[in-house]
Amino acid sequence: MKIIARIRTDFPEKFGLPRQSGLVEGLKGKIVFEPEYRVPEALRGIEGFSHLWLIWQFSEALRPTWSPTVRPPRLGGNKRMGVFATRSPFRPNPIGLSCVKLEGWEMTDEGPVITVSGIDIMDGTPIYDIKPYLPHADCKPDATGGFSTDAAKYSLDVVIPTELEEKIEEKLRAPLRELLSQDPRPGYAEDGDRVYGFTYGRHEISFTVADGTLTVCDVKNNK
Amino acid sequence: MKIIARIRTDFPEKFGLPRQSGLVEGLKGKIVFEPEYRVPEALRGIEGFSHLWLIWQFSEALRPTWSPTVRPPRLGGNKRMGVFATRSPFRPNPIGLSCVKLEGWEMTDEGPVITVSGIDIMDGTPIYDIKPYLPHADCKPDATGGFSTDAAKYSLDVVIPTELEEKIEEKLRAPLRELLSQDPRPGYAEDGDRVYGFTYGRHEISFTVADGTLTVCDVKNNK
Repeated sequence: MKIIARIRTDFPEKFGLPRQSGLVEGLKGKIVFEPEYRVPEALRGIEGFSHLWLIWQFSEALRPTWSPTVRPPRLGGNKRMGVFATRSPFRPNPIGLSCVKLEGWEMTDEGPVITVSGIDIMDGTPIYDIKPYLPHADCKPDATGGFSTDAAKYSLDVVIPTELEEKIEEKLRAPLRELLSQDPRPGYAEDGDRVYGFTYGRHEISFTVADGTLTVCDVKNNK
Repeated sequence: MKIIARIRTDFPEKFGLPRQSGLVEGLKGKIVFEPEYRVPEALRGIEGFSHLWLIWQFSEALRPTWSPTVRPPRLGGNKRMGVFATRSPFRPNPIGLSCVKLEGWEMTDEGPVITVSGIDIMDGTPIYDIKPYLPHADCKPDATGGFSTDAAKYSLDVVIPTELEEKIEEKLRAPLRELLSQDPRPGYAEDGDRVYGFTYGRHEISFTVADGTLTVCDVKNNK
């Protein structure tokens, strides 16, 4: 498997990322090809598609062995499901699959760079393949989603005090709210005093969660 | 990349296969795990999902080099598109992506075996990963499909003389008709005299195409 590109996103760490692609539309990424693949002809016709599949490496989840079951965070982190019934990164082959929106592409000093949105991928992640989303084959309006259906409806109220929100880059504010409403915590452990933190762009975001409300309690800006 | 399973289908060759998954619902496949992955717990909860993603190897399309453009058969086979704007098997990494319907799974002498339908994969193809289809993330009803949209509407009338149809295993007849209506030819070259052939199950199917009608002209049965 060759790395054809890497994605640049505002998430230097796994914690804080949405759990699936497309859930937070405002989160953007830039796909920068490796030198061998900087060929604009390889993208001819891609602008006709609204969405793309990215197949990528769970580069932060590489493990020498595999476990038949995993604990999905959306089930509270304490119930075991078969690995093939989840999208967990801890699988026999560390392959991720994301459906992202194609915003456009342009030629740069680094060759053609594709801008996408709705990402759920860490900064620097290796990309193995980019495929167009084919509505007639990939969109299954009758599909049923097992335990993921209820989990998808779950959301938190988000409180960001004005003085903290003003420290955040303006274009990142709306995606951040959406992201936080989906509860980035690894499980639903109820401990209202616990402070969680993650990095989003140049911001270090700290928050607590109690009674269905997520409150941002600190924002530190790097650089 | 480890091979976790292989799929068994009625298609010993590439020719004849639908061009995407889900287009011919009656085409079934059985996923048989490699010995190391014959662990039923790995499927716990999978029955709650109606559809699965299969990530597999284009094992018949392995090439030492890559070409930035390809000629999609659905564009007549003479127009070049960027490889990342197509689902062509000839790509930098030979990875296929199929959305199939989950019919069920059972324990067998070969461990847990998953039955799926809507396949577009050759018999014996190595599988790298199986993931649940998550409607809230994977189903994009607003997605637009570029050149694939028109191509998806294209279909042929199919004529199978009764005496030939009777030679075909009954449960394979309806899927065969659907398959043929989608035009398995590599391009739209109009040559009404040319006889095309492919293997489906134990049947060798021969056909011609003229004026929008595909006519089966011979069926030979193996064994």
